[in-house]
Amino acid sequence: MQTLYVELGARRYPIYIGSQLDPEQLLAPYVLGKQVMIVSNDTVAPLYLQHYEQALHNLGKTVAHCILPDGEQYKNIEHLNLIFDALLSSGFNRDCTVLALGGGVIGDMAGFAAASFQRGVYFIQVPTTLLSQVDSSVGGKTGINHPLGKNMIGAFKQPQVVLADMAQLKTLPPRELSAGLAEVIKYALLGDVEFLTWLEQHIDALVAGDETLLAEAVYRSCAHKARIVANDEKEQGERALLNLGHTFGHAIESYLGYGVWLHGEAVATGMVMAADLSCRLGWLSEADVARTKNIIQRAKLPIKCPAIPLDEFLSFMSHDKKVLNGQLRLVLMRQLGQAIITKDFDVELMQQAILANQEKA
Amino acid sequence: MQTLYVELGARRYPIYIGSQLDPEQLLAPYVLGKQVMIVSNDTVAPLYLQHYEQALHNLGKTVAHCILPDGEQYKNIEHLNLIFDALLSSGFNRDCTVLALGGGVIGDMAGFAAASFQRGVYFIQVPTTLLSQVDSSVGGKTGINHPLGKNMIGAFKQPQVVLADMAQLKTLPPRELSAGLAEVIKYALLGDVEFLTWLEQHIDALVAGDETLLAEAVYRSCAHKARIVANDEKEQGERALLNLGHTFGHAIESYLGYGVWLHGEAVATGMVMAADLSCRLGWLSEADVARTKNIIQRAKLPIKCPAIPLDEFLSFMSHDKKVLNGQLRLVLMRQLGQAIITKDFDVELMQQAILANQEKA
Repeated sequence: MQTLYVELGARRYPIYIGSQLDPEQLLAPYVLGKQVMIVSNDTVAPLYLQHYEQALHNLGKTVAHCILPDGEQYKNIEHLNLIFDALLSSGFNRDCTVLALGGGVIGDMAGFAAASFQRGVYFIQVPTTLLSQVDSSVGGKTGINHPLGKNMIGAFKQPQVVLADMAQLKTLPPRELSAGLAEVIKYALLGDVEFLTWLEQHIDALVAGDETLLAEAVYRSCAHKARIVANDEKEQGERALLNLGHTFGHAIESYLGYGVWLHGEAVATGMVMAADLSCRLGWLSEADVARTKNIIQRAKLPIKCPAIPLDEFLSFMSHDKKVLNGQLRLVLMRQLGQAIITKDFDVELMQQAILANQEKA
Repeated sequence: MQTLYVELGARRYPIYIGSQLDPEQLLAPYVLGKQVMIVSNDTVAPLYLQHYEQALHNLGKTVAHCILPDGEQYKNIEHLNLIFDALLSSGFNRDCTVLALGGGVIGDMAGFAAASFQRGVYFIQVPTTLLSQVDSSVGGKTGINHPLGKNMIGAFKQPQVVLADMAQLKTLPPRELSAGLAEVIKYALLGDVEFLTWLEQHIDALVAGDETLLAEAVYRSCAHKARIVANDEKEQGERALLNLGHTFGHAIESYLGYGVWLHGEAVATGMVMAADLSCRLGWLSEADVARTKNIIQRAKLPIKCPAIPLDEFLSFMSHDKKVLNGQLRLVLMRQLGQAIITKDFDVELMQQAILANQEKA
């Protein structure tokens, strides 16, 4: 087991990364009150809920659970309210803990509920997908979607502790494992070309589910994100680099409807668009773009999105949170392994990059 | 015009208190982005919306508005969502400002929307009731109600600036002015017996709407609250004293249904119960209780609540946020002008204090 600390001063917290982690031992110091509400979904709960309930019972805690339907399409205000209903009808107080047991959707919703219930209670994350292990479990971003945009409503909420157990990835569908690898690849593309080389060596074993290599990939990805988040918790500057591929990706997800493409799939194609535009701007070579597409394809991820009318694509992009004073900012690459955030690009080239990486209508 | 600064380090902000304030001049330094969403209700908007829209237009801002129905019964997740709808359908970004123009309900909802929209945008408060001027405009508590409890979902969100204009109290119904005076009296009872004496001298003129005296009462109340909040922003300790009368009051409001009694009316009767229990515990004299009831009555506020079955009253009290690890804590008075928070009281005496201050069934 490896331990990574996210350095946020008084809100510093550990991420435990390994296989067959012992929740009773690892959670004991971090459940501060008596009451724990486990928030999970109807796919994950049958597999792992009992394991965590038992561990918390052994610690003498009062445990309740709230099981939501599985899927991004339920990441909305109505289903968030079900968590509040569960907390209040169980008589939970201000000293309770909300424990997220599931992927990114569960982590985001449970985290926002923990941030908002009684204006803030304790929060613990047990991410059960590769995507949430490398992405949503670090950084404190929580929230829900709105019909007009993704993650438009939320809060920054740091957990007490995160348990990332590779053994739980065994039950993850291959398509979701690949979606998680999209975010792993993102860390290489945005800040670590040596990690990109490592991924090119090991991508087939990672896709096949090698737990030791996955733990290493999760550790490296989380370490990257933790360093960036510690420098810029509220996304005033550097943290925006983590959105490489996301502005394009959000437009794809919004157009297709949440839940049709996985978030990681949309980000994968979004990263191709970002690489393509970076090439059109003279920053990446065509070989760099080919290398980007290659690692994404080998991770079994899409490098093109379906045909989307350009005006609709642009309209969804303009709802992205990276619009500042009405001006769109994009995360692009100055070179492989070095992302920048910029509003200084030719809009026509951006449109070309979008169109070039869509299927023909 | 008087200016009071709430000292919260980087989130330090001014409250301007006076009559006929000039919003264009006072808001100019505090509206940081281009877009302002004014959130108001259908009672206040016809009176004051245009005045603030014009001032913001003069400052070169893009202004939109979201007008909610007036009343505590609309302080819920569905109406909160209307603010998000308005922000997104107007294409508002992360650098926008949400301006609350209204009473406590509008301030709480707009503040929570500002805390949550895009995980946090700027927030300005223009409280138009006495209650919100002395209470909800200081301290950063925002939120909405849930059918199982008041203010159960929310966030701490500090405004950039607060404008408290006494001239706007002219249009306030007398019943609401009295409800505001309940919170003013609260500051005297919890921490300033000299202020209580001042109120006893001026209560009739305050009830009659004297703007100079009201400004003084608002300034003194806000100064008390600002000092307490600066010491204890997240309500770990001293800040809980501000809840004098509120645990009883919340039970009254919850039982009657939100919006039947005004918040200040419920707090008024709650303070009588707190004084009564403090007397039963040997801390206040009967003369102190009589003095408490007298100032509340002279402010045209109720000193008894309708008959409420004790088990229901206690059940609503147990949903209060001041329950810690399952144990009810109450704000009581060691003497007039000196409140304490305690879990150390005889439950039977508490029940007597509740029953003694209800109408006969």
